[in-house]
Amino acid sequence: MPLVTVIEEMAKDARQACGQLRILSSAQKDAALELMAARLLEKQEDIIRENNKDLSQAKKAGLSAAMINRLTLDEKTIRGMAEGLREVAALTDPVGEVTGMWKRPNGLLVGRVRIPLGVIGFIYESRPNVTVDAAGLCLKSGNSVILKGGSEAIHSNLILTDLLVEAIKETGLPAKAIQIISTTDREAVNILIGLDDHLDVIIPRGGESLIRFVTSNSQVPVLKHYKGVCHVYVDKFADLEIAQEVCFDAKVQNPGVCNAMETMLIHESISGDFLPAMLKRFRNAGVEIRGCPKTLGLISGIKPAVEADWPAEFLDLILTVKIVSNIEEALDHIERYSSNHTEAIITNDYNRSQRFLAEVDSSVVLINASTRFNDGNQLGLGAEIGISTSKLHAFGPMGLEELTTTKFVVYGQGQIRA
Amino acid sequence: MPLVTVIEEMAKDARQACGQLRILSSAQKDAALELMAARLLEKQEDIIRENNKDLSQAKKAGLSAAMINRLTLDEKTIRGMAEGLREVAALTDPVGEVTGMWKRPNGLLVGRVRIPLGVIGFIYESRPNVTVDAAGLCLKSGNSVILKGGSEAIHSNLILTDLLVEAIKETGLPAKAIQIISTTDREAVNILIGLDDHLDVIIPRGGESLIRFVTSNSQVPVLKHYKGVCHVYVDKFADLEIAQEVCFDAKVQNPGVCNAMETMLIHESISGDFLPAMLKRFRNAGVEIRGCPKTLGLISGIKPAVEADWPAEFLDLILTVKIVSNIEEALDHIERYSSNHTEAIITNDYNRSQRFLAEVDSSVVLINASTRFNDGNQLGLGAEIGISTSKLHAFGPMGLEELTTTKFVVYGQGQIRA
Repeated sequence: MPLVTVIEEMAKDARQACGQLRILSSAQKDAALELMAARLLEKQEDIIRENNKDLSQAKKAGLSAAMINRLTLDEKTIRGMAEGLREVAALTDPVGEVTGMWKRPNGLLVGRVRIPLGVIGFIYESRPNVTVDAAGLCLKSGNSVILKGGSEAIHSNLILTDLLVEAIKETGLPAKAIQIISTTDREAVNILIGLDDHLDVIIPRGGESLIRFVTSNSQVPVLKHYKGVCHVYVDKFADLEIAQEVCFDAKVQNPGVCNAMETMLIHESISGDFLPAMLKRFRNAGVEIRGCPKTLGLISGIKPAVEADWPAEFLDLILTVKIVSNIEEALDHIERYSSNHTEAIITNDYNRSQRFLAEVDSSVVLINASTRFNDGNQLGLGAEIGISTSKLHAFGPMGLEELTTTKFVVYGQGQIRA
Repeated sequence: MPLVTVIEEMAKDARQACGQLRILSSAQKDAALELMAARLLEKQEDIIRENNKDLSQAKKAGLSAAMINRLTLDEKTIRGMAEGLREVAALTDPVGEVTGMWKRPNGLLVGRVRIPLGVIGFIYESRPNVTVDAAGLCLKSGNSVILKGGSEAIHSNLILTDLLVEAIKETGLPAKAIQIISTTDREAVNILIGLDDHLDVIIPRGGESLIRFVTSNSQVPVLKHYKGVCHVYVDKFADLEIAQEVCFDAKVQNPGVCNAMETMLIHESISGDFLPAMLKRFRNAGVEIRGCPKTLGLISGIKPAVEADWPAEFLDLILTVKIVSNIEEALDHIERYSSNHTEAIITNDYNRSQRFLAEVDSSVVLINASTRFNDGNQLGLGAEIGISTSKLHAFGPMGLEELTTTKFVVYGQGQIRA
């Protein structure tokens, strides 16, 4: 059968499963999630065996140690996946929530009810645990999912999906709720993103080039984020101890992630008190500093930042530093260079904190806290399927609720328009 | 200047205006809307003069009487546009609404706040009053809008936009909040939908071919609906008087709109009591009936429905009729042929009404009421900018709230992840 037919059939099966999925009780879905977790733990050896096939191919292909590390499944990571499924089971089911209900003058009772999106195409790279996370979140929110993982993790992804599907079948749920594209042919992505008659949304997760490719070519609506160029602005009225701790955490605690700080903006009037100790601490931690001319004038031995540095997502121990004359200059810099992901202000001034919250157009805006909190778990949404930096449908971390929409239900007694 | 540069500059100006728009108070926006309304009423003669240019071109081009009627602006339609703006001013401002706020175990206070989407590209056909409606809704929700109307209404659209912009400037709001593409070159649409760096959403409104073209080719996320193939299912336990009134209203009150009924499904056991009188009433009102074999067996002189009739949006006095053996057959038919727009059940049976609400996957599902209520005003959202039949972001009528998104705001006291 040609690949296009295979994938189209998968999509039709996924749509078919929606009818059953959208009326499942939370208890039924949670039972499936619990069984999915149990299966992963029971079948650890099989998982590790299949994962080893991916690992030996990765080593032959000369993948970096970091990549191989992300690909590796062991007892601990498998336990983590199982716990993740149980955490999703413990989250509140968004489906069926009545988000509002009101009576119209003609007596119609109108409500909005949360429903699943339908069929989700999930395209991702590298880490096989994402297979389990995505499948769990889609199932709990009543959606069918078609998974398309990276070729480097294909054996791991296939066995994980097999185990999950076995569990959902055993619980009496539709087997086609979770499907995976088993070919590593990249053409599969092209086919999947063209199925706008069968899919409701595509969620790509991975490098910027994958996401840009999917966004440019998809006929199905896409939920995505490209990158996080996150700023912390240390204001004139900052508590400098808090500023030190927050900036250090935002840059160093995990520099390879999208919510790490890439640029630190400092109000001129406190730069002399704040920067020398802060930059020393950064440099001791191995952070390369790239400074604006004023920073270079204040502290010696710093590399000058070039224009291309300001909009860059380094995902590394590199930090651009800029001294600004006032909060307006900080806000202008953010408006120009931020990726609308996460920005923070450190200040004890009430009006400046409120102004920053109101004017900064990013998915998460913080006062006196680290940018690293832009994360579904940290913000209290539970597990997340991604972070959206475009505004349609979702802006910021996407949890279960973001995998749903609402429909209107209307209770009448014979009302007509005429 | 090449057209692409002109439109790109418009988009950049629109983005620039967002900074001011998102922090406006409701009072400022409402004052602008009131002044916009006043200007339209004051400048009636100018509007009618420009509209006459469109009308004489339309007549030369041989447009249908219905088209010319939709294009015509007179004292009454201008008053209607002004009233529309005042109604939007009277609606609650969605921007700034805190949709939720909670405390995390580490003391972080996390909230979600409603914000404008940003820059909206609005592509529409025919009726010039849509120019005013769209501009008013976008302004109230704090968005910049770039309008691209149909060439047949270009003179009307230009003067209307001029008057609106004059009013917003006079109120001290950014002039670039409302812009219109003044060329009738269709290439402008291609350019606009390619500006994914500058626009947040494209909303097309018009015929299915325009909407399909925009959706297939846009690099910017699109909010749209293709068509409404709406069903009414008259159940075994229906109140037959209510069924008669609702079905008649759903088909005949305004057959040319997306929420009119296209297919009537009738439970077999009441078909003998219900159909003869119902179909007689339809035929007296000029409705052409296309029936399933069972309908043809019951009532003579009816045209048989062909397969292509079931998924068709007639937008006309044509109705397909199908007799079903049970509610399952009705639900299956809807699942197969509906456009996820609007479906209604007529029944007095509690369990069947609940089942229909739960299982039908349409943006508005009604019990004992006409499909014609799928409308922002009728459902109590106020004026609408369109109806979405895709599920991302909005499903159903889109009012002011659907022109916004939410961002997260976080109040900390120095919290870090490490």
